[in-house]
Amino acid sequence: MEKKFDKIINELSDLSSVGNLYDIDGTRGVYPSSESLQEVMSLLRFLLFPGFYGKSTIEISTLKFHIGVAAEQLFDLLKSQIFSAIHFCSTDKDKSSVKSLSEDIAYSFIAKLPSLRKILSTDVESAYYGDPAAKSFSEIILCYPGFRAIINYRVAHELLKLGVPLMPRMISEMAHSETGIDIHPGATIGSYFTIDHGTGVVIGETTIIGNHVKLYQGVTLGAKSFEVDKDGNPVKNIARHPIIEDNVVIYANATILGRIVIGEGAVIGGNLWVTSDVEKGGKVLQFKPTR
Amino acid sequence: MEKKFDKIINELSDLSSVGNLYDIDGTRGVYPSSESLQEVMSLLRFLLFPGFYGKSTIEISTLKFHIGVAAEQLFDLLKSQIFSAIHFCSTDKDKSSVKSLSEDIAYSFIAKLPSLRKILSTDVESAYYGDPAAKSFSEIILCYPGFRAIINYRVAHELLKLGVPLMPRMISEMAHSETGIDIHPGATIGSYFTIDHGTGVVIGETTIIGNHVKLYQGVTLGAKSFEVDKDGNPVKNIARHPIIEDNVVIYANATILGRIVIGEGAVIGGNLWVTSDVEKGGKVLQFKPTR
Amino acid sequence: MEKKFDKIINELSDLSSVGNLYDIDGTRGVYPSSESLQEVMSLLRFLLFPGFYGKSTIEISTLKFHIGVAAEQLFDLLKSQIFSAIHFCSTDKDKSSVKSLSEDIAYSFIAKLPSLRKILSTDVESAYYGDPAAKSFSEIILCYPGFRAIINYRVAHELLKLGVPLMPRMISEMAHSETGIDIHPGATIGSYFTIDHGTGVVIGETTIIGNHVKLYQGVTLGAKSFEVDKDGNPVKNIARHPIIEDNVVIYANATILGRIVIGEGAVIGGNLWVTSDVEKGGKVLQFKPTR
Amino acid sequence: MEKKFDKIINELSDLSSVGNLYDIDGTRGVYPSSESLQEVMSLLRFLLFPGFYGKSTIEISTLKFHIGVAAEQLFDLLKSQIFSAIHFCSTDKDKSSVKSLSEDIAYSFIAKLPSLRKILSTDVESAYYGDPAAKSFSEIILCYPGFRAIINYRVAHELLKLGVPLMPRMISEMAHSETGIDIHPGATIGSYFTIDHGTGVVIGETTIIGNHVKLYQGVTLGAKSFEVDKDGNPVKNIARHPIIEDNVVIYANATILGRIVIGEGAVIGGNLWVTSDVEKGGKVLQFKPTR
Amino acid sequence: MEKKFDKIINELSDLSSVGNLYDIDGTRGVYPSSESLQEVMSLLRFLLFPGFYGKSTIEISTLKFHIGVAAEQLFDLLKSQIFSAIHFCSTDKDKSSVKSLSEDIAYSFIAKLPSLRKILSTDVESAYYGDPAAKSFSEIILCYPGFRAIINYRVAHELLKLGVPLMPRMISEMAHSETGIDIHPGATIGSYFTIDHGTGVVIGETTIIGNHVKLYQGVTLGAKSFEVDKDGNPVKNIARHPIIEDNVVIYANATILGRIVIGEGAVIGGNLWVTSDVEKGGKVLQFKPTR
Amino acid sequence: MEKKFDKIINELSDLSSVGNLYDIDGTRGVYPSSESLQEVMSLLRFLLFPGFYGKSTIEISTLKFHIGVAAEQLFDLLKSQIFSAIHFCSTDKDKSSVKSLSEDIAYSFIAKLPSLRKILSTDVESAYYGDPAAKSFSEIILCYPGFRAIINYRVAHELLKLGVPLMPRMISEMAHSETGIDIHPGATIGSYFTIDHGTGVVIGETTIIGNHVKLYQGVTLGAKSFEVDKDGNPVKNIARHPIIEDNVVIYANATILGRIVIGEGAVIGGNLWVTSDVEKGGKVLQFKPTR
Repeated sequence: MEKKFDKIINELSDLSSVGNLYDIDGTRGVYPSSESLQEVMSLLRFLLFPGFYGKSTIEISTLKFHIGVAAEQLFDLLKSQIFSAIHFCSTDKDKSSVKSLSEDIAYSFIAKLPSLRKILSTDVESAYYGDPAAKSFSEIILCYPGFRAIINYRVAHELLKLGVPLMPRMISEMAHSETGIDIHPGATIGSYFTIDHGTGVVIGETTIIGNHVKLYQGVTLGAKSFEVDKDGNPVKNIARHPIIEDNVVIYANATILGRIVIGEGAVIGGNLWVTSDVEKGGKVLQFKPTR
Repeated sequence: MEKKFDKIINELSDLSSVGNLYDIDGTRGVYPSSESLQEVMSLLRFLLFPGFYGKSTIEISTLKFHIGVAAEQLFDLLKSQIFSAIHFCSTDKDKSSVKSLSEDIAYSFIAKLPSLRKILSTDVESAYYGDPAAKSFSEIILCYPGFRAIINYRVAHELLKLGVPLMPRMISEMAHSETGIDIHPGATIGSYFTIDHGTGVVIGETTIIGNHVKLYQGVTLGAKSFEVDKDGNPVKNIARHPIIEDNVVIYANATILGRIVIGEGAVIGGNLWVTSDVEKGGKVLQFKPTR
Repeated sequence: MEKKFDKIINELSDLSSVGNLYDIDGTRGVYPSSESLQEVMSLLRFLLFPGFYGKSTIEISTLKFHIGVAAEQLFDLLKSQIFSAIHFCSTDKDKSSVKSLSEDIAYSFIAKLPSLRKILSTDVESAYYGDPAAKSFSEIILCYPGFRAIINYRVAHELLKLGVPLMPRMISEMAHSETGIDIHPGATIGSYFTIDHGTGVVIGETTIIGNHVKLYQGVTLGAKSFEVDKDGNPVKNIARHPIIEDNVVIYANATILGRIVIGEGAVIGGNLWVTSDVEKGGKVLQFKPTR
Repeated sequence: MEKKFDKIINELSDLSSVGNLYDIDGTRGVYPSSESLQEVMSLLRFLLFPGFYGKSTIEISTLKFHIGVAAEQLFDLLKSQIFSAIHFCSTDKDKSSVKSLSEDIAYSFIAKLPSLRKILSTDVESAYYGDPAAKSFSEIILCYPGFRAIINYRVAHELLKLGVPLMPRMISEMAHSETGIDIHPGATIGSYFTIDHGTGVVIGETTIIGNHVKLYQGVTLGAKSFEVDKDGNPVKNIARHPIIEDNVVIYANATILGRIVIGEGAVIGGNLWVTSDVEKGGKVLQFKPTR
Repeated sequence: MEKKFDKIINELSDLSSVGNLYDIDGTRGVYPSSESLQEVMSLLRFLLFPGFYGKSTIEISTLKFHIGVAAEQLFDLLKSQIFSAIHFCSTDKDKSSVKSLSEDIAYSFIAKLPSLRKILSTDVESAYYGDPAAKSFSEIILCYPGFRAIINYRVAHELLKLGVPLMPRMISEMAHSETGIDIHPGATIGSYFTIDHGTGVVIGETTIIGNHVKLYQGVTLGAKSFEVDKDGNPVKNIARHPIIEDNVVIYANATILGRIVIGEGAVIGGNLWVTSDVEKGGKVLQFKPTR
Repeated sequence: MEKKFDKIINELSDLSSVGNLYDIDGTRGVYPSSESLQEVMSLLRFLLFPGFYGKSTIEISTLKFHIGVAAEQLFDLLKSQIFSAIHFCSTDKDKSSVKSLSEDIAYSFIAKLPSLRKILSTDVESAYYGDPAAKSFSEIILCYPGFRAIINYRVAHELLKLGVPLMPRMISEMAHSETGIDIHPGATIGSYFTIDHGTGVVIGETTIIGNHVKLYQGVTLGAKSFEVDKDGNPVKNIARHPIIEDNVVIYANATILGRIVIGEGAVIGGNLWVTSDVEKGGKVLQFKPTR
């Protein structure tokens, strides 16, 4: 049996069998580490909402020390993870320029934290005022999965805008696994955004969402189809997801597909399949089922 | 760059920017710790079903020692977490009376464990007899996410009835993240309750469910709308979710909204949007789709 | 209070109250450990896609040492966990024959890893070519929950075919918790299989899926009803889930129930409830909702 | 460089270079694990002096549960470690008889714990009454390295008497590393034994010590020489260390060598080299040094 | 066997057998935790010599944040551990006064850290200038066990002066275990103090040591005898250890006993037993051994 | 109190108070990490004596995989730690040349492991044949602190010869703390070297020890005095410790000082202070003490 065991190990060590799938040539570098990204998100959640995430007791008099230490740790982690992400994905392998670029991006990102906290505060507010079951702001921040998913999305979106590859997607998938809510970092989402319950929500890459929008669990904002190039590959980066205007509410399990516009103030009932525009203030409800 | 870094840290340390969102005045206390609640649930799962959760080998002759140690640890953890929850949420800050109240509640809760085990046993049975894929009772207890979500719900509901704030919601969100099943601790649910597969199930705060009810994945028992007071705030604690009577089955992705009654023995087909009462024994099925 | 505490502990130590639920007679053995199965899956993911899971830096020159060590650890863990699974579930308690059987199965399973890697590579390819948002093969392997669920499924299915009880289900539930995708290990699934986003997908025990099939989030491939024997118990192992032929696409939240056939190349629109056959190339779309 | 690296790895993998030193033939078994022995000692210290080692808070009403759980854990660990020790050292490799023997020994050892606690209590007393710097019994148990070394010795000695090889020595070396006190498990030591400060104390294998004896740091009770057999190997198990009678005090750094008798009540001054008998009540002091 | 096992557990649970040794009456409180004291010492070593202990990289610009966080953690730990120590040892059990006292002491101690760092710096210097093998100040701080033992001593001594019981002794025993150097916290030691190698050094409770003193390994500064009261108990707190004046050097393994004075600038050779005063500048050497 | 707390933190953050003690200018680099060196030694002990250290079960058929993985980990750790050591200690701060140098040294060191194993095997042999209490070679390797200290010494000495600063001393201090045996890495020690019991042994930097030498606990091979330069600093690197020729035995607590020669086959009795040469075959014993 030992002989055969060796044979299996040799087969498994030979990556050429699935070689075009991924190359290991020593120059590819290392992808970002999911453990480090978990730590990045823990630090970010603490920095954005100290007292609710991370250390549960905070005192005004010493808060700045904790913020300072966390910000430095975040900066160090971001530098190295952004470096990995860029180095892994790019063909340009000049390490020192990538390093300096990563440092600039990490700094720019951290400089945006105060404004990130502001917009996230609007999301807390809208969740509270839109849910009779919510007892306090604290409960939203501590317990609501929708809010956690939005934190990850806003962070990932900012990193994507700064040009970081791969890592934003990993961060949004972390929230997806934690909450069942899948928001592509490429989507554009306004303030006062609420996702209630949230399991099964999917928001595609080119979706545009206005302010004061509320989605319930299971809502899909997806693509109806996509173009294929002459080699049969999907054409990337084409606007193919819905535009949701201000003050729209979409109920549970509705599926909205394609580059359509759901007009301001519209209400979409649950369990619907919507593939064409809905006018401003429109109300789309389900058929009456047979009994 | 150092100068600016200091500026960011100062901005992040200044909580007044989002001040009305949460106050940190040294008297607020500490919210319950999610790590401690994870431990609470591990101890509870062991105490309720020793041999299936926690230590995998148990012997009749020494079981009582393990039960005794676990019960004492649970008592200590519950006391401190209930204290945090009450102290964090209440305006009355008399620490010693809160402490003694917390201890009483912790004890009362533990005294209910034997009856909790009994009702949970009915849930195991109904899952087994309702699923041809289930090979044994053990498989239900060990693998079925629906059952895990129900354990957390029954625990959270008991704590809520004893007057503990915040913590029940945190416990039910732990199950939500683990299983994709979101049961509000305020819901009232009878015995022999089954959730199959379960991802995406939402059961709202004022829902009432009878005995021998079965839900499939993606079922929402939600609110259709809610009242707003003169300041525009939602009125809390109004009955707004469905009443599901005994022996009802609701198939995948059905959305049942509002304070309606689904009568005894009714069957609701999948992917439906139901907003009005269904009579006893009624069968609601979907329309025929266009081909 | 001490007196009563003792009483509760005695009650909790007395398992006869729910005795028929599970027997603890010292001969039952120990169920597989979920911690060990987590480790099994980590080792497997590394062995199947070294450089993407586990150690992030790999070098061709020393890869074989890491593969060798991981394969030996996997073999040891599998032996003991398969032993537990068989011993726990079977009435035949001859330990030494179970031990030798477990070792044979563990070896047979490891011998299949190279071909498992091959078929999983087809799944990576189809995810990449079917998603405009995917930037590279790497992104699929690193981030896509659908792919992680398929890894667990293919592993669990292989173990089930080798006769291992309980453990395959535990492995598929691990993926369910991580991704919201619930694939029963008993299902049969061809190559080039894609699940996009995936939260809420349910694939039942007797489902048969061809090659080049794509499912979106929330799709259920379930049973419509099941037979009950003269004692009221469900009859196990009856074909009751759909057959999905090659090149079928099923959109978000569709519910396909019963032993029906979805013919080659068919397209099923989202949010549908389908309980009868769909012909080859058929397109099933949703009704027009009322506005 | 890679080529040479492989060469080094091959050389290191070839154990025949130092082959007579240790054989690895698959039948030798596994030596006791030092991690497990650390755990054994933690459990033992807790069982012997609950409230001083291990869990720092104990309550009379629940103590029995903790004792019960710890005793069961100890029993399990001892069984497996004694098995390893015997299996590793013996040429008789009948696993099942070794297993049953190990279980018997583990049980017999645990049955001796109450009397071990009693004799150790005499050691606490004598340390307290002999040291003006000691503030309480608690301080002895919590802080005094001499007492910790004596616990390990008394445990190791008991295991040796029960026929366990290797493991007693490993346990006494653990104390040696922690305290600098090296007591061979083979030594025979009476009650009310004190070692003050203790660093550098060595007590040889065939030493016999009476009751109420006190040693200071750096005292050696060693062998002067040893017999060699015709092959030049030392003859094992010959009495070659001192006999110290009741009520003897030996001051710091004294070196007492050979099978000599230090008579009852004798006092040996520090920094001495003593190789012949000292009569009952004798006082041996150092020369006057040159100034 | 089960019956007897229960009997052993009952015996072990009955603490009355050695009852006068330690009382467990629920009011005794909890002794300081050695894990917490390890953490206390790690924080202290970092605060005193940042960049050498704890985080190995430090930057001037962010050092204050790390110092601030560490100081707060230290303060919290000290408060609780000092509380335990006082509560455990004292008969006065008024919790709130002990709590406020503990807080005051913790604060007073932290206020002394800057001066502790200064005197410890003199110890680094003297170690460097007195050892040809020392390559740099850094090497002393990073590697020299003598210096580590002195840190613990100076900390423990400060705590003792502030009236903390038990804890100082636990801290000095931690150094004893790590380095083999046993300095009683009650000893008084001047600046520029060096212990070279250090294993086996013992410095008794009432020892007084001047400035610029150097001890080698194995040196004992002990008591020759002690007074006993009418009940046979040793009289506590009587001056019984040597006074070592400035600039004294004592070589390896010398044993200096009793309240004698070793005069300024004296040199004591190794392996000596000294029980009477040595004059200023005196040199005590060993006899010539027989060959 | 808050105000003063800030003042203390500012004082502690100001390193200029003890500024000449250590400079922190951002270019100094990072000293080697003691955690990493612990890991280095664990890997080395495994590589040198697989089956006795690290993984306790080894099989000939898979040993090479484990050796390969461990050797690669060791190489990576050594590279970075050697880099830190050189960068920290040197004034030349050209990072890339230091990096390449570190890699060369790490490789050269690993290439010496097979011969290190050989000479260490002679030490095992001599310990076994010289101790009637030793039951097997295994016992020496598993339990004898003298042997552990010699492993660390031989490793540290090799690294020192390859030009690595600081790190050798840190490695020998790790053994010092574990065993009480302090061997300076600069000492030169032949084969078949034994230290019995060992606590308190000190072997100075310029000591030279032949083959087949045996030392007992407490033996010092030290310097009598050292030269001071015109600034009062000790002159480094002058031969000032003893030369011990082949086949010498030195008994417990003997102190041998200065650049003297202990001739071949000499025996030095315990507790002696020796500062002049001992002739070949000489026997030095202690005076007769006064009674």
